[in-house]
Amino acid sequence: MFTIKNHLEVQNNHLIIGGADTTELAEKFGTPLYVTNESRIVENFSAYRRAFPDADIYYAAKANGSLAILRILARQGAGADVFSFGELYMALLAGIPHDKILFNGNSKTDFELQKATELGVRVSVDSLDELHTLSEIAQRSGKTVEIAFRVNPDVSPDTHPKISTGLRTSKFGIPAEEVVNTYREASDLPGIAPCGIHCHIGSQILDTEPFIEATEKMMDLVEQVMRTGIDLKFVDIGSGLGIPYKKGERTPQPQDLASVVLPIFNERTQALGISPKLILEPGRYIIGDTTVLLTRVNTVKKAARNFVGVDAGFNLLIRPAMYDSYHHVLVANKAASPPEGVYTVVGPICETGDVLARDRELPNVEKGDIVALLDAGAYGFSMSSQYNGRPRCAEVLVKDGIVDIIRSREDIEDLVAKQRIPARLM
Amino acid sequence: MFTIKNHLEVQNNHLIIGGADTTELAEKFGTPLYVTNESRIVENFSAYRRAFPDADIYYAAKANGSLAILRILARQGAGADVFSFGELYMALLAGIPHDKILFNGNSKTDFELQKATELGVRVSVDSLDELHTLSEIAQRSGKTVEIAFRVNPDVSPDTHPKISTGLRTSKFGIPAEEVVNTYREASDLPGIAPCGIHCHIGSQILDTEPFIEATEKMMDLVEQVMRTGIDLKFVDIGSGLGIPYKKGERTPQPQDLASVVLPIFNERTQALGISPKLILEPGRYIIGDTTVLLTRVNTVKKAARNFVGVDAGFNLLIRPAMYDSYHHVLVANKAASPPEGVYTVVGPICETGDVLARDRELPNVEKGDIVALLDAGAYGFSMSSQYNGRPRCAEVLVKDGIVDIIRSREDIEDLVAKQRIPARLM
Ligand SMILES: Cc1ncc(COP(=O)(O)O)c(C=O)c1O
Ligand SMILES: Cc1ncc(COP(=O)(O)O)c(C=O)c1O
Repeated sequence: MFTIKNHLEVQNNHLIIGGADTTELAEKFGTPLYVTNESRIVENFSAYRRAFPDADIYYAAKANGSLAILRILARQGAGADVFSFGELYMALLAGIPHDKILFNGNSKTDFELQKATELGVRVSVDSLDELHTLSEIAQRSGKTVEIAFRVNPDVSPDTHPKISTGLRTSKFGIPAEEVVNTYREASDLPGIAPCGIHCHIGSQILDTEPFIEATEKMMDLVEQVMRTGIDLKFVDIGSGLGIPYKKGERTPQPQDLASVVLPIFNERTQALGISPKLILEPGRYIIGDTTVLLTRVNTVKKAARNFVGVDAGFNLLIRPAMYDSYHHVLVANKAASPPEGVYTVVGPICETGDVLARDRELPNVEKGDIVALLDAGAYGFSMSSQYNGRPRCAEVLVKDGIVDIIRSREDIEDLVAKQRIPARLM
Repeated sequence: MFTIKNHLEVQNNHLIIGGADTTELAEKFGTPLYVTNESRIVENFSAYRRAFPDADIYYAAKANGSLAILRILARQGAGADVFSFGELYMALLAGIPHDKILFNGNSKTDFELQKATELGVRVSVDSLDELHTLSEIAQRSGKTVEIAFRVNPDVSPDTHPKISTGLRTSKFGIPAEEVVNTYREASDLPGIAPCGIHCHIGSQILDTEPFIEATEKMMDLVEQVMRTGIDLKFVDIGSGLGIPYKKGERTPQPQDLASVVLPIFNERTQALGISPKLILEPGRYIIGDTTVLLTRVNTVKKAARNFVGVDAGFNLLIRPAMYDSYHHVLVANKAASPPEGVYTVVGPICETGDVLARDRELPNVEKGDIVALLDAGAYGFSMSSQYNGRPRCAEVLVKDGIVDIIRSREDIEDLVAKQRIPARLM
């Protein structure tokens, strides 16, 4: 038994996750299959907890909103960042308390604002327009809603442009120069209690520099807002901490983030004589590396490249096709075998972009082998589709050898469950 | 009443599709909502039929596999190109006969090959490895499977690289120089009857040049294969005809495609003294422009841009985020109003890439307005997900004012229907 990456081990040439043999899981539950290691979730959460002992940690449900995963995090004391009523519903079902949830989003429906109001969930408001809508809804419901504003600090992290959210030109947040006036306006509005400030600058950020810049800009805004007489009870600096998708890659840890963010936060709040709660919203760091996607080799073709055709494609893991992301792959049933060739792992989807891993050194790959895509926990299943008429796969949770199905495989019939053919077409 | 684009009309400042007022549809069925005009499907199919009177037209179910849409095309005499057992199941359910279906795909499971064999559906084989698997399956079932090979003609159409499928380096097909040997091998294998040849060079192709090149290369291969003594009963040249997403854009029509493809096909087959069936696999042309996606404005924000936040995002229409695609948009309840500003239409998804339409001149946009995204029929709903905890939307079919729901909206509860929390986590 030896460790291959993080919590993943190899025994008898097989990949082991959470004490379970992945080849047996593939056999028993079929492929494709998402497998999540509960203990690793707890480890990752604990790393955040230790690094930020006084902060509230709101798990970003969007990264992976599976109920069982939300439940595990609820038991660790996590709150949740939710982006829709669907995510709010699931966070509550999983037992995350309503007062540890922030309802985020740049385009919420009236129904969603109504629900947040009724359920006593704080709202991160993205625009003046939304503020006024929320005020009306709160008044009609005879409630006061605690809000933050999502502000746009205009920080440009070095990540994929599609997920860099804190740029001036992005759709998110109140432009920095309008923030103070927006808080002023909010504090005069019935049904609205401005009590926090929120930003999020992007995802898969690989150095701490942008977080320093964002925290400083946020604290400038906190100071300006305070001067208007508003008491900010929390400062939510979002998330974005990247993880090492490549083997051996080094990325900042929560501890590194804390060592640059906390001094700024503590110094500035002390200078201002305030003690707001710090909130963080990690998604990827908590769940990304906990999960592998197991997929079976249907066919191997020697053409311009050595193509390994597997049974999962961008229907189940869209990151490589959408963001050119790298996922480390290995052959789960030959996990310690030496490389014998260079292979490109492709899915069954009808597009050329459906490549999961390009030009990888792997042992001799054969039909029937199980390919494991590592670090597939974040933005994996949560972005899955039924494209090309493919039912979505199952998810299992493993912990010290215990295996539980947490999401059953969809059947072919599920593809048509909501459909009907009008009688006149017969 | 006047026509705004193709079959779309405007009456009393409202967008009308298939005789139905889109603002009334949005009111009655809620948003987001996909609305498809049956008559336009028939028109588009007829354009292909007229242009290629002797060909078989196999609708590419991947573009939009909704049962009712497959049913409409079945009634027109269409066959189907399917890419999975799920699509095969739906094509058969919709009444497309098994002998007018081609089972395509670069990475089919044994189960899928078994099903195709049992059901008497022809298979487009993508690799030698697959060929041998299929031969074994056919023998075990005591059947003979009619096959084509997907060949890679190495043609490079000028389209988005993710959907240009006929390049040498793409994952699809048998490299041209190996085609003849592959047919030889196939004709010796038990359970296999090679009887067709197949290619597909990409999608959203905007000129006819690549089709000329592909047809010529295909006919070269047909000639070489014939010389080995194999009788090719069909030549399937796939699809890829683009459509005008921009207003006023001119793109080749089926007639233009026919005028370049048929002379080559007819001349070469006559010279060879053979009369194979020509097969075409249009998806986008048939369904793309038949459908609008209606989405309601939640909020308007003046920031770096004028952002219009709507209730559909890349969860429901991923093309702009994934391929930088353009969709024409208009305000369905102000369809004839003059432009008053420049707006960027964004969805509710947590990523900066969730922009549906950038910098468009639109009438004054207000909360509650209905934005229509045109030409959303192909690769729209079929690629949809539940990302950010959002149930998928409904689809309705309209025809001369008759409105039928063909897919009901998912509920919030559908998000958790397949999920469970292990008891030990309580
Ligand atoms: C507002 C907000 N918070 C938190 C996150 C989670 O980010 P990450 O997964 O990079 O930790 C996201 C991701 O999009 C987000 O939009
Ligand atoms: C094999 C095959 N045939 C047909 C099509 C349909 O192409 P289009 O929608 O461009 O007509 C596709 C699209 O990916 C395909 O892969």
